[in-house]
Amino acid sequence: MDPALAFLIAAQRSEIRALEQLRATSDLVRGMSEWVHRLQRERGASNLYLASRGQRFAAQRQQCVQDSEAVERAVRERHFSPAGDPSDTYGGLRLLSRIAQLLHALGELPALRQQIAQRALEPETATRAYSELVAAMLAVVFEAADTAVDPGVSRALVALFNFMQGKELAGQERAAGAAAFAASRFEPAVLQRLVHLVEAQDRCFQVFQEFAEPALRAMWGHVLAGPETGDVQAQRALLHGGGAARTSADAGDRWFEAATRRIDAMRLVEDSATSALVALCDARLVHARTDLADQTRLRASLPAACEGGRALAPVFGSAAPDLVAGAGLGPLLGRSVLDLVQAQAQRLQQMGDELNAAQSALRERKLVERAKGLLMTRRGLSEDAAYRLLRQTAMHQHRRLGEVAEAVLQMGPLIDGL
Amino acid sequence: MDPALAFLIAAQRSEIRALEQLRATSDLVRGMSEWVHRLQRERGASNLYLASRGQRFAAQRQQCVQDSEAVERAVRERHFSPAGDPSDTYGGLRLLSRIAQLLHALGELPALRQQIAQRALEPETATRAYSELVAAMLAVVFEAADTAVDPGVSRALVALFNFMQGKELAGQERAAGAAAFAASRFEPAVLQRLVHLVEAQDRCFQVFQEFAEPALRAMWGHVLAGPETGDVQAQRALLHGGGAARTSADAGDRWFEAATRRIDAMRLVEDSATSALVALCDARLVHARTDLADQTRLRASLPAACEGGRALAPVFGSAAPDLVAGAGLGPLLGRSVLDLVQAQAQRLQQMGDELNAAQSALRERKLVERAKGLLMTRRGLSEDAAYRLLRQTAMHQHRRLGEVAEAVLQMGPLIDGL
Repeated sequence: MDPALAFLIAAQRSEIRALEQLRATSDLVRGMSEWVHRLQRERGASNLYLASRGQRFAAQRQQCVQDSEAVERAVRERHFSPAGDPSDTYGGLRLLSRIAQLLHALGELPALRQQIAQRALEPETATRAYSELVAAMLAVVFEAADTAVDPGVSRALVALFNFMQGKELAGQERAAGAAAFAASRFEPAVLQRLVHLVEAQDRCFQVFQEFAEPALRAMWGHVLAGPETGDVQAQRALLHGGGAARTSADAGDRWFEAATRRIDAMRLVEDSATSALVALCDARLVHARTDLADQTRLRASLPAACEGGRALAPVFGSAAPDLVAGAGLGPLLGRSVLDLVQAQAQRLQQMGDELNAAQSALRERKLVERAKGLLMTRRGLSEDAAYRLLRQTAMHQHRRLGEVAEAVLQMGPLIDGL
Repeated sequence: MDPALAFLIAAQRSEIRALEQLRATSDLVRGMSEWVHRLQRERGASNLYLASRGQRFAAQRQQCVQDSEAVERAVRERHFSPAGDPSDTYGGLRLLSRIAQLLHALGELPALRQQIAQRALEPETATRAYSELVAAMLAVVFEAADTAVDPGVSRALVALFNFMQGKELAGQERAAGAAAFAASRFEPAVLQRLVHLVEAQDRCFQVFQEFAEPALRAMWGHVLAGPETGDVQAQRALLHGGGAARTSADAGDRWFEAATRRIDAMRLVEDSATSALVALCDARLVHARTDLADQTRLRASLPAACEGGRALAPVFGSAAPDLVAGAGLGPLLGRSVLDLVQAQAQRLQQMGDELNAAQSALRERKLVERAKGLLMTRRGLSEDAAYRLLRQTAMHQHRRLGEVAEAVLQMGPLIDGL
């Protein structure tokens, strides 16, 4: 066989293997999306249960726990119990490690539920524990997005990851607001945190809109223009506005219900996004397999005479494509191999460009998260304050947030004297 | 088994597989380095043969061809004839595609040699043809560097790629200078191209020094301070200085010999670099396999009682590490899994940071190459002029070359009106 063709076919096979792993990963992401949604509800109900000193939401909380457990069993069975080596199913060291970290963190969930049932935790502690678990799940989705080899799938995953992150921040807003209503505590620090959660959500949904397909963008546009968003905005105004309404007996319930309706509407968008993602992987796989079948046909038709790698005549010093007629290889077939090589090279170039765009969005997020962490550790800032410092620096210096974050990280050892 | 541990082990296995592919790729890069060196000599000899109208270097050229062919046979047998699917040996769509492109381009080499033997080509055309082949080889090395998953190996490959690129530019300088001496043609355009080749070499060796290990940097420092470099600088001065000396009968020979001694000295550095690269892959593999063996031992010692993923007790709401003692799992073993998960997470974080540094050097090069290409196509600039335009813009705007290149590429459709 022409060795060039053999390596082209191997390249195609390697792509198919990567797409198969991406298909499995996307399916896992779909499972994660459902599971995160359940844990978010459980977090909200647990919060209300603890904040009301066990007076309310006891039954709802138990129902939420049961729902979460059912999804956990399904996800574990479907995604975390591969028949063979998990590294055949999922691609990449980082994704596998993130899954290991998540599975490890999940070991703590039963005891967390027990402590909540016994009311042995503060609401804030319980919320933080759930949020850490959700963060571990989102980290899996992040790695899935970062390892995607196909630009279309990569864009879809970046959009989805940002949407899930935005929805998680909405969940945190629901929990924090519910706790505030339930305990009738509306200190500036609490209100400030709620403002920060709203801003952070907006940024996530902006990135989502940048990378999502038009159909999903339109779907999200309907939510933004619909009553789900309007009701939440009214509740936010109430919470910040003061007055007797916010301390009424059922103010917390109304907040929770409005926030839940909005989050459920997000869940529908997310559900479409995950289904579209899996369908996209399937489509890419069909396409890649068809390409491979074509090349295998081509290879089968190559005469034995062109063994040895000198199948193609020279094109040096001549622009005439007719010259591409090798010893023992018809001009048509010669052209075909040349076309394949060139088409592949061009496709890789385009793929690289598009992948870069999606991946730089992820890189920026990674840099900002790490710079925030550094500022929090070294300078004792809160997460909000660290983020505000980064954003203000970027605005003053007319630089991108990612650039400022990178500079902060490079200055790491000097940061104490900032 | 604890599913977290199962996924950790899978992550390790996935890393070992990636390192095995990196080992094969590094071995291929070593072969390429030798082969490129032979083709560079063949290019130089062919150039002198053609420029002297077949009067000189006929025997040397034939010897060079035989040497090249011997290396080609060895490389093809060792690296391009894998027993099974090549995508088991080499990782990644892009690397495999680059190899396919190279193998395709190599089909043109026998005819090129024939045309040179018959003196049916201009020296410049022959040099360009060889240079395109070498570029296809360097593209393979570039992809190898870009796909490396280990920061140490990645740095070594980035250093090596830049060194090989610098050596190739030195080879182009040797060929261009030899042709000028042989034909006694020293027009400004020729001299300008030689200056550009020297500048471009310097940039490559700077990046090499940024990424290479101290031992290799020291070795290269000796070459820079040694007679090989001094002689070439004297020859360059002669070539640019004018006068009778540069048109003497054996001026071209002296140029060629001095340039060859320098390139041969580079070859020694490169040889050390490729050997160190392969040794580094071996060391990483030993390390990763030892880690895996440790974890397999750990797994074997896990009692059956901790099946089901709830092996680790909660750490929420408590800072005491003693709490990490799961049902049926001794505290020591519980700690071990936790340690493994945390160590892995930390290592990945570090790896990511270091890989980013190496990969951004490659990304910048990729961007600059593509922006140059765009300017050459759309604005009809020469390669030198395109590069100078990018560099001047970067200097005037106080921006990095890569940023300017990115901006040029983003403006792609508007570039005609630049």
